[in-house]
Amino acid sequence: MEIIKTKADMQAWSKNKKKESRTLCFVPTMGYLHQGHVSLMEKGRPLCDELVLSIFVNPTQFGPNEDLSSYPRNIENDLSLAEKAGVTAVFLPIKEDIYPENFQTEIKLQSLPNHLCGKFRPVHFAGVAVVVTKLFNIVMPDKAVFGMKDYQQLQIIRQLVLDLDFDIEIVAGDIIREKDGLAMSSRNAYLSKSERTSALSLSRSLALAKELLAKGEKNTADIRSKIDSLIHSFPETKVEYVSFCQPETLEEIKVIEKKVLLALAVKVGKTRLIDNALIDPAQ
Amino acid sequence: MEIIKTKADMQAWSKNKKKESRTLCFVPTMGYLHQGHVSLMEKGRPLCDELVLSIFVNPTQFGPNEDLSSYPRNIENDLSLAEKAGVTAVFLPIKEDIYPENFQTEIKLQSLPNHLCGKFRPVHFAGVAVVVTKLFNIVMPDKAVFGMKDYQQLQIIRQLVLDLDFDIEIVAGDIIREKDGLAMSSRNAYLSKSERTSALSLSRSLALAKELLAKGEKNTADIRSKIDSLIHSFPETKVEYVSFCQPETLEEIKVIEKKVLLALAVKVGKTRLIDNALIDPAQ
Repeated sequence: MEIIKTKADMQAWSKNKKKESRTLCFVPTMGYLHQGHVSLMEKGRPLCDELVLSIFVNPTQFGPNEDLSSYPRNIENDLSLAEKAGVTAVFLPIKEDIYPENFQTEIKLQSLPNHLCGKFRPVHFAGVAVVVTKLFNIVMPDKAVFGMKDYQQLQIIRQLVLDLDFDIEIVAGDIIREKDGLAMSSRNAYLSKSERTSALSLSRSLALAKELLAKGEKNTADIRSKIDSLIHSFPETKVEYVSFCQPETLEEIKVIEKKVLLALAVKVGKTRLIDNALIDPAQ
Repeated sequence: MEIIKTKADMQAWSKNKKKESRTLCFVPTMGYLHQGHVSLMEKGRPLCDELVLSIFVNPTQFGPNEDLSSYPRNIENDLSLAEKAGVTAVFLPIKEDIYPENFQTEIKLQSLPNHLCGKFRPVHFAGVAVVVTKLFNIVMPDKAVFGMKDYQQLQIIRQLVLDLDFDIEIVAGDIIREKDGLAMSSRNAYLSKSERTSALSLSRSLALAKELLAKGEKNTADIRSKIDSLIHSFPETKVEYVSFCQPETLEEIKVIEKKVLLALAVKVGKTRLIDNALIDPAQ
């Protein structure tokens, strides 16, 4: 497994592999890898000849009051998990190489970021769009894998690839959960023991919605109100949003007639957690 | 010379050439080609194995009161000039293929568009940035040639390539002029006979500035005032801007100590014309 530290070296490595007609699959991450990331690497591994992982805590996707400075890091463990998952090159750039002085380009989507997390994190998806565009041009992959846990991000990347004509296939990876249902996230590391219990309110909400839907409940306002009550029955929780929306456009839906995305964000203590599920009244 | 009409076919053509290890040079244009474009094609021709020309009147770079609907077109003549200049593929997309329904991505530079033409054409350079990004991802060139007449555009493309990490070398082509000094432009076709004479006010202004500089004049306000008088001595002219600026950042300069860009925009009748020169007090 190669460790590559500059974008010039990464681009040279990728160009070299392409000259040898080898295909590249790419998994971009912010590190502090867990089984969710491992599943993305395992999904990507058989798709191409090479598997590139990037680890970069991207400053432009954090708001001024968010957790950039405290974001957890553990490079040694990350490299060990990457090697086991069959990664052939790890790209570990520094901030100054990705955003040199005089960097001034912004990439914004006009519609998709106006929903869900985008409402509460106004700079987040512009930061994601610009770093992913850069990483695509540096790594030059044939395919790239993004997790469904960041569902809005996945949709934004899919739209970005369509809009900017990247010749890259986007592959979606399933949400990976702890045994008790908590969706895996690097931010779970922030949770105290009591908060860890309250964090179950998110996956329990998804289960409750499926249950209510199975019983014939279709009015999203009614389901949302029951979910709100469930979440607030756990200590130290504060709902940011509970949203039922059309899975492609992310537009809010009032009555569930066909497959919808249920997405939610909850603050547990100071930690902001998200989760989602595609739910289908026909099933 | 191949004529390629869809982005899927263009991308396939380019990928195929790359598989054969052939290098690609790219000249993007809005058509109605003149000797300025020919010089860009001739500059690009020896640089790579293939020479791709695109012709696309990009709607997103025109403001609501600009000349999108009247922009001149002559595809037959364009194809004839392209073939003579050694173009191996012409990309002729339609608007609906470049901007499909639900297109929603914006690319904006934060600093460079705040000067010169960008002040008067608020959506122009965002439109240029997005279409050039798309064309780069569709054509996948190794090099791309842009003319110096659109100096601000050239600087913006250079910054875009740096900021988004495109693996593309940007090559600058000189301004090509008519015998009497008028910089070649597709928009010269709009000029009546009397306007054609007044259009000389732009190149004459550049000559005047060089003359004044040679005489030791360094104060840009003084030179600008003489240029204003010169331009307004031609009928039907209206100065939009006369700007002395730092050639990389495009920031306004008050006293000429080293090489500066003199750029100007003048309305001649209803036609907006631009011209520029790098001028150096040491020469």
